[in-house]
Amino acid sequence: MSSRHMNLAGFLIAGPVAHSHALWRNPSHEVPFLTTEYYVEVARKLEQGKFDLIFFADRLAIADRYGNDKEVGIRHGDQDSTRMDPVPILGALAATTRHIGLGATRSTTYDQPYHLAREFRTIDHLSNGRAAWNVVTSMNDGEAMNFGVESHLSHDQRYDRAEEFMELIFKLWDSWEEGALRLDRGKGIYADPAKVHYVNHDGAYFKSRGPLNIPAGPQGRPVIIQAGASDRGRAFAVKWAEVIFNISPTREHMKRSTLGVREETERLKRPAGSCKSLTAIMPFVGRTREEAQEKRDLANSLVDPMVGLSTLAAHSNVDLSMLDLDAPVEQLQSSGTQSLIAMASRIAKDNSLSLREIGRKYGESVLVPQLCGTAGQIADELADIFTSGDADGFVVSPAFLPDSFAEFADGVVPELQRLGVFRKDYTAATLRGHLHT
Amino acid sequence: MSSRHMNLAGFLIAGPVAHSHALWRNPSHEVPFLTTEYYVEVARKLEQGKFDLIFFADRLAIADRYGNDKEVGIRHGDQDSTRMDPVPILGALAATTRHIGLGATRSTTYDQPYHLAREFRTIDHLSNGRAAWNVVTSMNDGEAMNFGVESHLSHDQRYDRAEEFMELIFKLWDSWEEGALRLDRGKGIYADPAKVHYVNHDGAYFKSRGPLNIPAGPQGRPVIIQAGASDRGRAFAVKWAEVIFNISPTREHMKRSTLGVREETERLKRPAGSCKSLTAIMPFVGRTREEAQEKRDLANSLVDPMVGLSTLAAHSNVDLSMLDLDAPVEQLQSSGTQSLIAMASRIAKDNSLSLREIGRKYGESVLVPQLCGTAGQIADELADIFTSGDADGFVVSPAFLPDSFAEFADGVVPELQRLGVFRKDYTAATLRGHLHT
Repeated sequence: MSSRHMNLAGFLIAGPVAHSHALWRNPSHEVPFLTTEYYVEVARKLEQGKFDLIFFADRLAIADRYGNDKEVGIRHGDQDSTRMDPVPILGALAATTRHIGLGATRSTTYDQPYHLAREFRTIDHLSNGRAAWNVVTSMNDGEAMNFGVESHLSHDQRYDRAEEFMELIFKLWDSWEEGALRLDRGKGIYADPAKVHYVNHDGAYFKSRGPLNIPAGPQGRPVIIQAGASDRGRAFAVKWAEVIFNISPTREHMKRSTLGVREETERLKRPAGSCKSLTAIMPFVGRTREEAQEKRDLANSLVDPMVGLSTLAAHSNVDLSMLDLDAPVEQLQSSGTQSLIAMASRIAKDNSLSLREIGRKYGESVLVPQLCGTAGQIADELADIFTSGDADGFVVSPAFLPDSFAEFADGVVPELQRLGVFRKDYTAATLRGHLHT
Repeated sequence: MSSRHMNLAGFLIAGPVAHSHALWRNPSHEVPFLTTEYYVEVARKLEQGKFDLIFFADRLAIADRYGNDKEVGIRHGDQDSTRMDPVPILGALAATTRHIGLGATRSTTYDQPYHLAREFRTIDHLSNGRAAWNVVTSMNDGEAMNFGVESHLSHDQRYDRAEEFMELIFKLWDSWEEGALRLDRGKGIYADPAKVHYVNHDGAYFKSRGPLNIPAGPQGRPVIIQAGASDRGRAFAVKWAEVIFNISPTREHMKRSTLGVREETERLKRPAGSCKSLTAIMPFVGRTREEAQEKRDLANSLVDPMVGLSTLAAHSNVDLSMLDLDAPVEQLQSSGTQSLIAMASRIAKDNSLSLREIGRKYGESVLVPQLCGTAGQIADELADIFTSGDADGFVVSPAFLPDSFAEFADGVVPELQRLGVFRKDYTAATLRGHLHT
């Protein structure tokens, strides 16, 4: 494709919900989220829709910040009630798909660079160049306590550690030059030792000698995804990532997020367009707009306000059970995800929502905008966002699975192709190729 | 099957070699060890042969103990020259096989219990109850240095940490009771919080609050594999493992290893037969014994003594380059794997081997006995070892792939079935079922 085209990512959690907490409660069929077959079906559907990638969010603890009790989140099934490890799932998808990029979340705070360098390099080999790492710095006390730390690092410390983590993991990925592998069976020369390098990293947070014990992969460095939205977070994201993911409840916010990415890209003297700004949407596709709205209303009716509050408490890392459920919310505090909580706070205040009401709203979509319409109407809206430059593409977040992705891939994607804003077929071999060709 | 039958495991490293350093040098065809297709083909072949499981050894550093230089190991392709991460590979195999158990090695020294609990629980779900963890305590300085530690823990400290690691990971695996998951879509009840438990572990090496963020899997606790052979190692192995793996260069050693497992099982008051003692073999199958010996000779001719010395230095964690290559070896020191190095030392001394000669021998099979014969002859030998009680089964280590496994599955297995010592088909749904029915 010669002209600029949009990028599409499918969002997933390896558990019962995604941004919509209705997901597992689909009245039409079960959602077998503990099985391989489920993830294979979902990924193949996205691949039929020529998506750039599928990626899995992750966190490392159940959510019990609300009331400091696991009761609410586990009973209702919040975002953290179950999350399988996404990395073995990417292995399963590497074996059962051919084109779509495969991304998983790992934490710079609770993981080790040498382990992660191996994991993503391995996935890159297994998938022939389709690996992506969604970098998170982790944010809540539950995660800290599972790893023997009394409380999580401060926002700045997390990013200091994350910066050094990225430096080191890039050194490890670069420790085998391309061409180091000789594989001369006749002479018995496996590789050229002069092209395999110690990294000798000695920093404030990490020491590692290297080299990695895996040769260079098809992409060299796997694709980096990041969602940092604070000032520090965005600077980190643009410095290291190729895909930047934002949640923007309004078009205005979407525009500002993308502009922020573009300005930071320029400031860091990275090539224009090297960081793709993708914005999350939750589409409901109907034969009519009314039918789409009915689908949305059904999904939202399945969300208990308490399950949303459980996830909101986890994201803010603040116990919200102290507040009156039915009093208007003035200001939500956060020591966790800054930007989402600031948005939730503003939405609550602007609309005089009670805690219960903002809980319901948060549970419906974690502030991801819900779009209702026919396939053509949704395609037109996305094309407008894209051509006006308010986003480089979209992270499609499903209300039901595989239903939402099927409706999008089978309905919306052909309309986007007709409008000339999305690829008709894969033209590159690697995820990086999908993103930049 | 009502009578006792043998268990079979396939041994693999996600790289160019296994115990035989000839593996990638197969003159007949390439060995695409960086691709998914290769591992899928190998696992399916073992599944055709009704193997209990396939498992991947692992280590966390290239080997450069010999001469404290990466030159020899990287150039010749030693055991540590390349090891992809086995966990995503198990994900790929979960999606492409149906019966065979899936095992990967992880370290209690360089990994975190919460991460490993998630990984193996996830694989257990993805595979419908076929997950196994091969527990290692890690042993060499190269690994320590990749994780920012100056030198590896002492043998006893490694096992102290490993003991606590096992206690904690079992608590995490047990933190969701069976039946905790309700999945009542109508009422919106995801799970029963009263059946999901904090673990509140607070020990010398680890703290973790839990619970795990994944419901109980098909096997509850994944199967544990261990290869500890020192006194401390064997006590640890029998306490925690269901499969114990030994390398025994002689029948006498094999007998003693299995007896040791049985005695320790009795001492710990575990049920007789709850720990399976599997011994490693490297089979060469021919239409005649002579043809099999020619295959062996070909494989061994492809092993450079230096590649064996590189792996031997890694296993002993001692730089052997100080010793004269052509002088007889009196005694090999080890701060790494005790038992293998003691055996190598004895073999060298008993046979007046030079360092170069023991290097060649070590490179040929890492002391795994090489068996040559027709399918029937090998089956008779294995049946004899099994019926005499000198082993409960075998870890089949390939010289070439997929060739060695194909010869074994297509040739030796039918003979074992004919002799009535091995299953004709899978009769259980889980790996634990394969092992104990």
